[in-house]
Amino acid sequence: MQKVFIIMGSKSDLPIAEKATALLKKFNVEYEIAVASAHRTPGRVQNLVETTDAKVFIAIAGMSAALPGVVAAHTTKPVIGVPVSGNVNLDALLSVLQMPPGIPVAAVGLDRGDNAALLAIEMLGISDPALSAKMKEYRKEMAEKVEADSKQVVSDVRS
Amino acid sequence: MQKVFIIMGSKSDLPIAEKATALLKKFNVEYEIAVASAHRTPGRVQNLVETTDAKVFIAIAGMSAALPGVVAAHTTKPVIGVPVSGNVNLDALLSVLQMPPGIPVAAVGLDRGDNAALLAIEMLGISDPALSAKMKEYRKEMAEKVEADSKQVVSDVRS
Amino acid sequence: MQKVFIIMGSKSDLPIAEKATALLKKFNVEYEIAVASAHRTPGRVQNLVETTDAKVFIAIAGMSAALPGVVAAHTTKPVIGVPVSGNVNLDALLSVLQMPPGIPVAAVGLDRGDNAALLAIEMLGISDPALSAKMKEYRKEMAEKVEADSKQVVSDVRS
Amino acid sequence: MQKVFIIMGSKSDLPIAEKATALLKKFNVEYEIAVASAHRTPGRVQNLVETTDAKVFIAIAGMSAALPGVVAAHTTKPVIGVPVSGNVNLDALLSVLQMPPGIPVAAVGLDRGDNAALLAIEMLGISDPALSAKMKEYRKEMAEKVEADSKQVVSDVRS
Amino acid sequence: MQKVFIIMGSKSDLPIAEKATALLKKFNVEYEIAVASAHRTPGRVQNLVETTDAKVFIAIAGMSAALPGVVAAHTTKPVIGVPVSGNVNLDALLSVLQMPPGIPVAAVGLDRGDNAALLAIEMLGISDPALSAKMKEYRKEMAEKVEADSKQVVSDVRS
Amino acid sequence: MQKVFIIMGSKSDLPIAEKATALLKKFNVEYEIAVASAHRTPGRVQNLVETTDAKVFIAIAGMSAALPGVVAAHTTKPVIGVPVSGNVNLDALLSVLQMPPGIPVAAVGLDRGDNAALLAIEMLGISDPALSAKMKEYRKEMAEKVEADSKQVVSDVRS
Amino acid sequence: MQKVFIIMGSKSDLPIAEKATALLKKFNVEYEIAVASAHRTPGRVQNLVETTDAKVFIAIAGMSAALPGVVAAHTTKPVIGVPVSGNVNLDALLSVLQMPPGIPVAAVGLDRGDNAALLAIEMLGISDPALSAKMKEYRKEMAEKVEADSKQVVSDVRS
Amino acid sequence: MQKVFIIMGSKSDLPIAEKATALLKKFNVEYEIAVASAHRTPGRVQNLVETTDAKVFIAIAGMSAALPGVVAAHTTKPVIGVPVSGNVNLDALLSVLQMPPGIPVAAVGLDRGDNAALLAIEMLGISDPALSAKMKEYRKEMAEKVEADSKQVVSDVRS
Repeated sequence: MQKVFIIMGSKSDLPIAEKATALLKKFNVEYEIAVASAHRTPGRVQNLVETTDAKVFIAIAGMSAALPGVVAAHTTKPVIGVPVSGNVNLDALLSVLQMPPGIPVAAVGLDRGDNAALLAIEMLGISDPALSAKMKEYRKEMAEKVEADSKQVVSDVRS
Repeated sequence: MQKVFIIMGSKSDLPIAEKATALLKKFNVEYEIAVASAHRTPGRVQNLVETTDAKVFIAIAGMSAALPGVVAAHTTKPVIGVPVSGNVNLDALLSVLQMPPGIPVAAVGLDRGDNAALLAIEMLGISDPALSAKMKEYRKEMAEKVEADSKQVVSDVRS
Repeated sequence: MQKVFIIMGSKSDLPIAEKATALLKKFNVEYEIAVASAHRTPGRVQNLVETTDAKVFIAIAGMSAALPGVVAAHTTKPVIGVPVSGNVNLDALLSVLQMPPGIPVAAVGLDRGDNAALLAIEMLGISDPALSAKMKEYRKEMAEKVEADSKQVVSDVRS
Repeated sequence: MQKVFIIMGSKSDLPIAEKATALLKKFNVEYEIAVASAHRTPGRVQNLVETTDAKVFIAIAGMSAALPGVVAAHTTKPVIGVPVSGNVNLDALLSVLQMPPGIPVAAVGLDRGDNAALLAIEMLGISDPALSAKMKEYRKEMAEKVEADSKQVVSDVRS
Repeated sequence: MQKVFIIMGSKSDLPIAEKATALLKKFNVEYEIAVASAHRTPGRVQNLVETTDAKVFIAIAGMSAALPGVVAAHTTKPVIGVPVSGNVNLDALLSVLQMPPGIPVAAVGLDRGDNAALLAIEMLGISDPALSAKMKEYRKEMAEKVEADSKQVVSDVRS
Repeated sequence: MQKVFIIMGSKSDLPIAEKATALLKKFNVEYEIAVASAHRTPGRVQNLVETTDAKVFIAIAGMSAALPGVVAAHTTKPVIGVPVSGNVNLDALLSVLQMPPGIPVAAVGLDRGDNAALLAIEMLGISDPALSAKMKEYRKEMAEKVEADSKQVVSDVRS
Repeated sequence: MQKVFIIMGSKSDLPIAEKATALLKKFNVEYEIAVASAHRTPGRVQNLVETTDAKVFIAIAGMSAALPGVVAAHTTKPVIGVPVSGNVNLDALLSVLQMPPGIPVAAVGLDRGDNAALLAIEMLGISDPALSAKMKEYRKEMAEKVEADSKQVVSDVRS
Repeated sequence: MQKVFIIMGSKSDLPIAEKATALLKKFNVEYEIAVASAHRTPGRVQNLVETTDAKVFIAIAGMSAALPGVVAAHTTKPVIGVPVSGNVNLDALLSVLQMPPGIPVAAVGLDRGDNAALLAIEMLGISDPALSAKMKEYRKEMAEKVEADSKQVVSDVRS
């Protein structure tokens, strides 16, 4: 079974991580989770990254969000970066996105732990047709949800 | 052999695409390339996305850069979005990054066609150990380049 | 009778849509309303746009708000885009505004479902003198409201 | 024949206006053009707006771009606002977009005189099927241009 | 006696206006106050501006805050512009500040009705030594307040 | 005769200052000019401000443009602040604009030395009817220039 | 014993200052604290700066946060600037950061009174090995806290 | 003799580093210089930081400028961060500034290698009175330069 490693820069990022774990559970994808700070525990980050057998990383951090880039510096596996909202927002968002040439990070939107998980699943699905098929099913459910929402809205507006 | 599909929103995005093709060639990864606009040719985008056997998409676009999201809407394969610089920059950057929950795009930095290719290769490397090994080699070369640059700088500053 | 089609990217955009429906009702302009996501249900968006007999579209979306542009890609009727506020704001605002050359969207301000409706009515009023006359009347009412507010403020400040 | 009135806040906005006039000529839509400043010649703006028989306005202005809003204040016909780029950009862009409730302006992107013209033509096309048909033709030409560009790019990259 | 005219774009700007009126009262400077919208009641703005005997204007507005510029367009007396905060902020701030060459507005900070009043008083003080002397007194009081605050803080921190 | 004091934070701000001196000369308003830095020569700034008989200050500075605020801290005469453009722009613009309550600065737009001079003249005009009359004349000339520009543009477009 | 001087621009900045005092106490570093405004009490700021025997300054201010720069203008000791959050944020942040060449300020993040204290301690630690050793200890505690948080999170997620 | 270590993220940052070396030479402060990338050579950064006997670090980097923070993660000596300008600017600026609590970086302005050196010298001057005295002398020279510039400007404007 393929594994995803979720690393949070701080315990306070847990609600964002849980958006990811909820989806990984739904898709039956194994995951590890840890708190490790690029700035407070750089050695711990390196150690966790180098010793895991996970195939994809999700790194979650706010402010000058160095964690995704530092994870990427220690691995050639794909790293997904999730910027966390705060009172500036552009800080985390740009720190995760604007990586220098050579060391890519796959940035998703502010607080988008859910999309980080879906992106990880799509990456694993490249070589896992069953997982890819489940994702197509999930897309269908989402589309049906939109249609149901639409009917609800039309009936609400009418009444 | 695994294939990457590079879609540009406009012919003028070619220099950014060529940063990607240069690296894909270096890593011997096959690619297709096309111009297709989310706004001017939505059907063409859908058709290209649905009929290719590529494993990963790289979508390159500027301004209200809808292309990566529209590609992602038609596939469950991973989509990497490259925002293209212009006279606002935050427009393309936020359009690519801030995808709604459910449909992920892997955003890389402004004009980072190179990182898009490297990220695609890392994704393909999940199930292709040879490709992953080449990436480790590439990282080593980059690190050696940094050390060489450092020696050059030290000798320049001294003289 | 002329009709306006209001498409929301998500059920949560309903409060913005209702600013529009309130004004369309006041002006006796018929409307349809639906939820359809550019990213989750691209085919549904295309189908709704291509089969309606509405004359003007109002597309409401937040974050990387692709919906107005995607609606515009499927029609040559005027499309009004309403960016929805969130924790970045510039994302939706720039996504709606910064359309590439060739496919225009008429952007209104953040959360301005009301102005979207008024703009739609002005467009329909080009060929509907009665509707245009009602709009002139509405402007007069607004101006009288400003004068009444002013009197209220002066008396509040005095006391 | 239906007419569009293009008002520039300053003579220096002419290159943006010419993107509009080129398209209006192509679609055989009549237009008037004038320089009139919301700040230097408010009476002239009012006079021009109130005495023309044009059906749609295009107002072009930079910096604290008040012109589109001031034009809209004097008419109930649709007003399209074109923000002009400078060394801040967000100033013109937000001034045109963020109109208060009650007086709508249809904002297009920075320097998008072309999209302003296309939007004006779409508005006139609501009641002019021939014009609307021409626009469909124009869309087809654009799509063909994208396909031709794509072929060119593919052959350039191959060689 | 010299008079200041405070014009608000909307009744909701009253709390900002009251920061100004509180100071004008304290300095015994006469003032008029009115609600008048640059967009909803352009004629009313012009009429109020042209018929008052006030020496200085304070114009308060949010979003695409055209009011200060429109007031300035109708007078050669000094106009102080107060941008009002909202969910974008840069919109009002840049609209008030970035006036084109020829028609100046004296911008103060976001929601700074108080500084608008103090600036108006300084302007009137150019030819009114008594008023200028009061302002020097006010500055002294402020400085004493700072010293008192400092003592308070020191004793709070110590305890 | 009334005098304006122009203080630049750096010699490199001279082109902005000259936009002001050109207009002050045209209006026959006397001025002093000096370079004095809030950060490098705080004592010099204080000394210049406290010993001049000028009635109004124009302070010109870029980056963390503290000069206008520091001038204002040493006088109760009106201080006009001109932010100077650079590679951030929002730095100077916000530093000049966002003064704390109690010490007002009259901010004009980025690089708007011209509007600073016109605003100073309007302030002096409060008690100088001849100066105020000249400003009305100047406005008329500007309006005529706009009409002339308009004729030029119309004839250019026609040909 | 070495001393740090904390200057706040306003009494309302006390919560930010207390993040600093808490850490200075923990490290047994002596400190002075005062309220002094660059704009309301420039002489007081100069006097406090020039007469203290503190080795390092921490200056805390919001909006057009001139205080750190003004403190730096009166001393050649290191000055740490703490921008305080408000409803713009970029104003304080850029005012503190973007100092002109010649007069440095050491900027820390928005509201980061804690990091200001730690930075001051690091500076004092250059010549105080005991203090430097304590900082190494503090870092170790922080790292242990991260590991403890991680265990907590893992057990929370599991349950 | 006390030493400063200048680390650049890329060879292209050399012009910014040279602003620092020029001043360190002028003050006779020894320095080391190296290129080392937080992302491409994390081990090299750690090694350089942990083995040097320098007292202060200057870390120079652009885009998602992680280098200053990563240096700070491996030392308790003061780290000065210099963001490097590019086509976004806010990315480097916020990445350097918005460090999480616990690991401080002393940020200076965009491209301000000069101020980084002056700040390093001020830090070393805490325990080095001769260095501190030289800095006072340097300040005097700067102030004299401002006065000389002022005389030049006055004579230029007069002629």
